[in-house]
Amino acid sequence: MNFKLSQVPERTSKPRQFGLTMVMDKGLSIRQIEDMLDISAPHIDIVKLGWATSFVTPNLKDKIAVYKSAGIPVYFGGTLFEAFVVRNQFEDYRRLIDEYGLEYAEVSDGSVDMPEEIKCDFIKVLAEQVKVLSEVGSKDETKIIPPYKWIQLMKAELEAGAWKVIGEARESGNVGLFRSSGEVRQGLVEEILTQVPNKDIIWEAPQKAQQVWFVKLLGANVNLGNIAPNEIIPLETIRLGLRGDTFAHFLNDKTRKRWKLTK
Amino acid sequence: MNFKLSQVPERTSKPRQFGLTMVMDKGLSIRQIEDMLDISAPHIDIVKLGWATSFVTPNLKDKIAVYKSAGIPVYFGGTLFEAFVVRNQFEDYRRLIDEYGLEYAEVSDGSVDMPEEIKCDFIKVLAEQVKVLSEVGSKDETKIIPPYKWIQLMKAELEAGAWKVIGEARESGNVGLFRSSGEVRQGLVEEILTQVPNKDIIWEAPQKAQQVWFVKLLGANVNLGNIAPNEIIPLETIRLGLRGDTFAHFLNDKTRKRWKLTK
Amino acid sequence: MNFKLSQVPERTSKPRQFGLTMVMDKGLSIRQIEDMLDISAPHIDIVKLGWATSFVTPNLKDKIAVYKSAGIPVYFGGTLFEAFVVRNQFEDYRRLIDEYGLEYAEVSDGSVDMPEEIKCDFIKVLAEQVKVLSEVGSKDETKIIPPYKWIQLMKAELEAGAWKVIGEARESGNVGLFRSSGEVRQGLVEEILTQVPNKDIIWEAPQKAQQVWFVKLLGANVNLGNIAPNEIIPLETIRLGLRGDTFAHFLNDKTRKRWKLTK
Repeated sequence: MNFKLSQVPERTSKPRQFGLTMVMDKGLSIRQIEDMLDISAPHIDIVKLGWATSFVTPNLKDKIAVYKSAGIPVYFGGTLFEAFVVRNQFEDYRRLIDEYGLEYAEVSDGSVDMPEEIKCDFIKVLAEQVKVLSEVGSKDETKIIPPYKWIQLMKAELEAGAWKVIGEARESGNVGLFRSSGEVRQGLVEEILTQVPNKDIIWEAPQKAQQVWFVKLLGANVNLGNIAPNEIIPLETIRLGLRGDTFAHFLNDKTRKRWKLTK
Repeated sequence: MNFKLSQVPERTSKPRQFGLTMVMDKGLSIRQIEDMLDISAPHIDIVKLGWATSFVTPNLKDKIAVYKSAGIPVYFGGTLFEAFVVRNQFEDYRRLIDEYGLEYAEVSDGSVDMPEEIKCDFIKVLAEQVKVLSEVGSKDETKIIPPYKWIQLMKAELEAGAWKVIGEARESGNVGLFRSSGEVRQGLVEEILTQVPNKDIIWEAPQKAQQVWFVKLLGANVNLGNIAPNEIIPLETIRLGLRGDTFAHFLNDKTRKRWKLTK
Repeated sequence: MNFKLSQVPERTSKPRQFGLTMVMDKGLSIRQIEDMLDISAPHIDIVKLGWATSFVTPNLKDKIAVYKSAGIPVYFGGTLFEAFVVRNQFEDYRRLIDEYGLEYAEVSDGSVDMPEEIKCDFIKVLAEQVKVLSEVGSKDETKIIPPYKWIQLMKAELEAGAWKVIGEARESGNVGLFRSSGEVRQGLVEEILTQVPNKDIIWEAPQKAQQVWFVKLLGANVNLGNIAPNEIIPLETIRLGLRGDTFAHFLNDKTRKRWKLTK
């Protein structure tokens, strides 16, 4: 923090267990990664190589090495896991994770219809190898999963050994947790939170209005995911009440009253 | 200009007093700034470090030094000013400006309810220290300020010592001068222009259609702000009638008639 | 390709005659070009310097040299051609192409009303100098060209010597082939394909949903254009069935049945 300002919420510090910012890299070059780290490394907790972009990315090992040397864990997007699984190549996938020296992996069923027991089996097996992020929610906007089912899936997957569960939103933020307009499924999120600990969930929230909504509901240290590289600094200001949208949120009552601000 | 083309409007040249392009940096790394300058320095007049992004930006002094060595003035976004003011830290803010060697500052009330006399007092004080950009318009899309009030505020703030007044639009271009759809509040702009000199106003216009609208109304040398780094070159072509949207605008009658073009 | 996966469609390889990805550079710096090439050179077939951005781009010769040394052809956007033509400077334009050592040129009438015979004459003349990309479709969203006319124009322009014809969409993807919402004019595309060979057409498709639609209709090796630099890697995954949207498209029946996937 460059300046001293009162009434700014305290952020957790790295390595964070909550207050995580998960960034989506959908095809950065090595120099672009360096640029991102140069300006926002302190605010990046973990990086996802979006869906199966790693399949067509040159210098993949070098890219991963850059993140590693900055102490930032990297993992392959869930669609790559699914691509291997539907082709009966799960064992190849496990070898791949070791070959690239990864310490995290995602298990998801956003593009396939996977029975929950089978998904949990994959989680169990992978959890012995790496930390598992397990994603709930479909990439298909016509497939609406009711809240009780989200809760049941999240609980089962955490129990199977997932380090965190992720609420699906895609790169665009218009499925899963959100309506096709990008609006939050508010009732869904609130119901999930009655049963699943907030700290165990990473909410994919690529759009600004979505990030603002979660910070207002759950505070500066909510876990947020699918953040674009050039939105890391902006998100950090939202978390700290230093952007218009959350400007009044962390101010004390006296200040708010004096300036006629509503939270 | 790389090629010789007739019927291209003349642009003012740097250091410009009008025809300004104000760019928003919302978290560029030093190398990203160098890249931006490499391709568009001649078209950048002034850079705003968006809202309070400067609070969480590492190497802030180095960033500012890069802009300075390119002869481009930098200032902190108005939200940072407001963040200091609501916390009763205005004197800290003044010291900050000097500490970072800045020559411009923004005074705004986009996130707070500030009586006009108080805002003008801030302008007066800061105008003795730096050149002041004073922003009119709320970041709250439900807060509609009527045209006569915009005019009154702009006049008072220029009189208080502001170098330019800025018409608010945010990074997204959907408040203040614009409807939530991004459409220009046309009547508002026209009414303002009956009373406030165009050259004293910087119109925030982050969206292409907004830039086109202002260039068509006010010509190649209108002052435009909140331009994203990768939109500086595209904006310059809009100003010169070299993009589809303004293609016919600066052609002479003979040419337009020959090619059946409407302005 | 970094990993071995079954059931991935075969891509053509460079230098490609079809399966082309045409990228739009609307003002990249030299280092930004290097970054783009570093991560996606194998997936870039040809680069357009968008509309008349080349007019205001510093170091234009150096930029072109970077592309050339990577073996990637570059051409000026059609709006620059039109800007020269309406000013009676076509001969200047021809000299320019040679001066910059270009081997491709675009002929378009997106911003002017040009009789078809005249457009074909321009194509004929330029085709003796370079490979010509000829664009069909207006940049004006109120100007709807009926399908039979698209077909007639495309045929005539290929006959006049165009190497490929381009279906217009602009940078934004909301005119020409698309409705103002960005939705594909499906009937138009299907009717065109009954008369014009697919391999002779480059479909401008800047939006993801548009790219998905064309890949599903025409396969991995459809020619697509106006791809933004940071969408090259994502597009390649769409082509290969490795993004959610085309995940099931290239899988065999057995796999799809097993996982209850619809194409």
